[in-house]
This record gives sequence, structure tokens and C-alpha cells, in this order.
Amino acid sequence: MNKLRVGIVGYGNLGKGLIDNIGLTKDIECVGIFTRRNPKDIESEIPVYSYDEILSFKDKIDFIFLCGGSQKDIPIQGPEVLENFNTIDAYDNHQEIPKYLEKMNKIALENRKVAIIAGGWDPGLFSLNRLIFSSIMPYGDLYTFWGNGVSQGHSDVLRRLDGVKKAVQYTLPNQDIMNEIKEGKKQESLGKRCHKRVCYIVPNENCDKESLREEICKMPSYFEGYEVEVNYISEEEFSKNHQKMNHGGFVLNSSSLNDNHQLMEFSLKLDSNPLFTSAVLLAMSRAISVLSRKKDYGAFTIFDIPPIYYSGEDRMENIRKLL
Amino acid sequence: MNKLRVGIVGYGNLGKGLIDNIGLTKDIECVGIFTRRNPKDIESEIPVYSYDEILSFKDKIDFIFLCGGSQKDIPIQGPEVLENFNTIDAYDNHQEIPKYLEKMNKIALENRKVAIIAGGWDPGLFSLNRLIFSSIMPYGDLYTFWGNGVSQGHSDVLRRLDGVKKAVQYTLPNQDIMNEIKEGKKQESLGKRCHKRVCYIVPNENCDKESLREEICKMPSYFEGYEVEVNYISEEEFSKNHQKMNHGGFVLNSSSLNDNHQLMEFSLKLDSNPLFTSAVLLAMSRAISVLSRKKDYGAFTIFDIPPIYYSGEDRMENIRKLL
Repeated sequence: MNKLRVGIVGYGNLGKGLIDNIGLTKDIECVGIFTRRNPKDIESEIPVYSYDEILSFKDKIDFIFLCGGSQKDIPIQGPEVLENFNTIDAYDNHQEIPKYLEKMNKIALENRKVAIIAGGWDPGLFSLNRLIFSSIMPYGDLYTFWGNGVSQGHSDVLRRLDGVKKAVQYTLPNQDIMNEIKEGKKQESLGKRCHKRVCYIVPNENCDKESLREEICKMPSYFEGYEVEVNYISEEEFSKNHQKMNHGGFVLNSSSLNDNHQLMEFSLKLDSNPLFTSAVLLAMSRAISVLSRKKDYGAFTIFDIPPIYYSGEDRMENIRKLL
Repeated sequence: MNKLRVGIVGYGNLGKGLIDNIGLTKDIECVGIFTRRNPKDIESEIPVYSYDEILSFKDKIDFIFLCGGSQKDIPIQGPEVLENFNTIDAYDNHQEIPKYLEKMNKIALENRKVAIIAGGWDPGLFSLNRLIFSSIMPYGDLYTFWGNGVSQGHSDVLRRLDGVKKAVQYTLPNQDIMNEIKEGKKQESLGKRCHKRVCYIVPNENCDKESLREEICKMPSYFEGYEVEVNYISEEEFSKNHQKMNHGGFVLNSSSLNDNHQLMEFSLKLDSNPLFTSAVLLAMSRAISVLSRKKDYGAFTIFDIPPIYYSGEDRMENIRKLL
């Protein structure tokens, strides 16, 4: 079997997770990492090149994993790279997805390429379950809860505050509300009651802890209105207990017909968010070569792809073993 | 919007569930029930016809739900009906699925028809999660647990025993083993330890309860080797507490990489198995008209179909709302 030859643009946690996961596959090999930083600054067993050299790999790569940030990198790199390569990304700016999808679809069609966008678990596996649950039970109530897990966005916001040396913010789902849903109790206007925000902060020496706590609880959109817990800890404790990038969550659909309660649930409990997200991307990326072989060009989401395309194994073998 | 016009072959619990679910949709209408029994014996607001009349509906029906039994009905009716109509079924004889799929695929291609086979939740949603979990974490451990739920097969077996007036058998998952899996403990050779079999029996007057209990526990393949609980109850209690057709279960994938434990879980808790199975079939059936419009003929499983085809709503609307 010829291995699929892939490249990685952007080498953060997601890119590192991909390298680890690719190492476990038999059908995929990574031929290069492409970076905007100085390639010499990146340590890796895989060759590292400048992002500007990527065009010289035009016929040597089956597809590119776009592993930059959703805020600034992917909206630029996605369209750029797609002109010459098939791409897959975990673009997670939910509100901008429709516009990004249209743009990528146009470029893919013009250049006879395949793009898979917004892969991973949310958007991704969670979206897939929201779609399937809603299709089966359009009259049911659909809920998404996140956590326990590190919110990068909220942690960043904390780190920018005066008096904060290091910080991490965990999002926790409200277990009481989840249990009520599972028992079939309808929930109205949940909003910010669904999640609790727990902060662990290493304060600076000159930090006024009480004012900082107040400032955090009052921050609009990020913390205001939520149940917030602020814990001050030492740098040692931070290094020891708050380095994991764990995450997860729940998608629930609760419905009732003729006095019969029906509950569908999908959940993830992840010690490492980037290691898992990269494993999902890797599975989804197998669909690129199938779609490309069928000349089915364009930009695709997890909604559009036959799930069998994600498997590295034969269709009939999967049907025998797993159906 | 033109409604999809559908027919139902076989009118048991699944067919009844379909009628209930179709009543809640805006895009599907049932034009007839086709039965091998005397049509006059079936009470329904939908017109009931003899199975032999089905050909006269050739151009009046978009597809047929095959709701007969998997043992005797579908293997005959599937190929028969597919020659003239698109079909969907919940064929659940796992071992025979590959052969049935091949046969249905051949007939579908010859007659330019679409067949969706083995829909529902297991096979069906559970299979889909087994496939996706295995594709993402091929090095993970995959588990399926069923229950709490009524096993029709085991209940039938009990009813055939001397001394039994009425009986139902519930399959229960072993919670201790499930909890260990969720905590990341690897399980070896689980087999019959995964499930407990709980029987509720209304005995005949001449029933020797102790010998019957022994006979049940020793029945090969059905009960031998399992943890079995036999409860004798009155006819009144049976009528009051054991009429629901509840079911459900769990698909789990537990994996570990670089000391990170990752858990994926899909679960169902259903008060009514047939009402839920029919809701899944109904959603899956929407894919028939998409595939048929694309002239993508053949026999399909849940592995082969883009999930967006199950939705009654617009793709971009779904992407905006659910991705």
C-alpha cells in the first residue's frame, strides 16, 4: 500500500498531537512541517521548512493539515494553501464557519481540490451528533455541555489581568441540570446556568486578591452571570497540577412521545484535548483521498462525508466487524 | 414542498411506531400499509391493503418501509419489494448482513433503485459510533453494552418452557465493569460477564418453580454462564409493570496515548424501543430521496451515507445552527 503523504502547517499543540498520532498509523506519513517561525527553532524528527517553501512540495504531498489558530492563521492560510493542496483544518470560529466554508468551496472547485473544514470534536463529533439527534428527534430538546476542561480563551483573558502571573480556567458542566435532563425534565432558558467557571491563579507579589476576584466575576461575556470560583495557588502547585489540557463534554437529546421518554447521549472525557482533536482530524483526513479519487471536489464538513471514508480498513470488513 | 409518499410492509410494533412518528413530520406522508394478514383485521387510520396489491402502487410511492421480522420476512420481502420500489429496513441479523447487503445491492443496481438496510440503533447508530470510534482510535478498546432492556429473543425462549404462562427477560449491563472501563482499566475476555439476565415469570398452576429456575439457568447460549435472576410474579404485577418495551445501551472506546486517557461514549436510554427505532428509520429514509435524485443506486448502510441526508432541513441552515 502506498502511504498517504501529508504536510503540517503550523506546529503548536495540535500539530504535535498529529505527529504522535501519525506515528501510530500504517497508512499515513508526514513529509514535512511548514512554519512561519524560523525552521531552525523547531525541534522535530520530521523535516521542518519555511511556510514559503511549501509550493515546492506541490506534487509530493497528498494533503495539508492546517494547524494554525482559528482567529488569525487559518482564515489566511486556508485559502492560500488550498489553491495548490488539498487541506483539512479544525477551524472552530462557529459564527464564521458558513462564510469560511463558502470561500473554501469556491477555491476548491476552481482548483479541483478537496477541503475538509471544521474537523475535530466541537465543531466536529459534537456537531455530527447534534445533526443526527435533531434529524431523529426534531421535536426533542437538544443540549450541549462542555467540560470538565481548560478553556484557552478564558485562561488567556485571566493572564492579561494586572496581578496575574499564571492562570488557567476550567469550565465545568452543571451536573444537577444534566441529571434533570437525563430524567426527562424539560429545561427552560438555561444560558449561563449550564456551566461553572473555576479559575486557578498564581498571583503576582503586588496582587490585591480581593479586588482581582471582583474584577474577574464582573467581566462581561467571559465571567459575569456565571457561577465563578477563584482559587489562588502557588507556582509549584500550578506546575504540578495544572499542566494537562483536559477537556470533554456532552451532547444530549431528550424527547417524549406517547409518554415514552427517549434519551440520546454522546460524551467525551479527554485527558488531552489536542491529542484527541488531532486523532479526529487524522481519521477525517482519510476522506480527502477518497473524495479526491472520485473527483468530488469542493469544501466538506463532517455533515457531508460518508463515515466509512474515515476508516483505514476495507468497507466490507468494517460491515462484518462493526455493523 | 411535495411530501414524500411512503408505504409500510408489515404492521407490528415497528410499523405502528412509524405511523406515530410520521404523524409528527411535515415532509412525509404514509399512503398505505401492506399486510399478509387479512387487511380487515388491522385497525388504522391509514388505508390497509393486501401485500399482493403492492405493485399497483408502483408510481404512487417514493419508498417502502420493510417492517416485517428479520428472521423470516425481510430476507424474502426485501428482494421482492426492491425490484419495484426503493426500500428501507431495520434488518438486524448481524451475521447475515453482508450476504443480505450483497443481494440487495445487486437487485437495486439492476432495477435502478435505492435500498437502505440495517437501519435503527443496533445495527444502526451503535454501528456508526463503533465505526467512528475505531477510525479515530484504532488502538483503543471498543465495547458495546446493552440494556436495561427487554430481549425479545430471550423472552420468547422463556415463554416456550413448560410451567410458564407469561414471561419477560431484561438484559442489564454490568455497571461495575462499565465504570472500570470509564476509569481507563483495560478489560480482558469479558464475554458473558458484561450482562446480567433478569427474568420475570408468571408461572402456571402446576409449575415446579425450583426446577424451572434450574432449567433456565442451564439453557446453553441463552442463559448458561450468565448471572441470571429469576423472579416469579402474579399476572396482575406482570400487566402493571412489565408491558413497556424499554431498551438502550452503551458504546465505549477507551484509549491511552502518552499517559493520556481518552474516553468516547455513546448511549441510549429508551422507554420504547420500537418508537425510537422507527424514528431512526424515518430520519434515515430521507436519504433515499437524495440518493435516488442523484441516481446513486445500490444498497447502503449507515456507514455509506452523508449524515446531512437524514435531515429534513436545508444544509446551510444546519451548518449555521448545529456545526
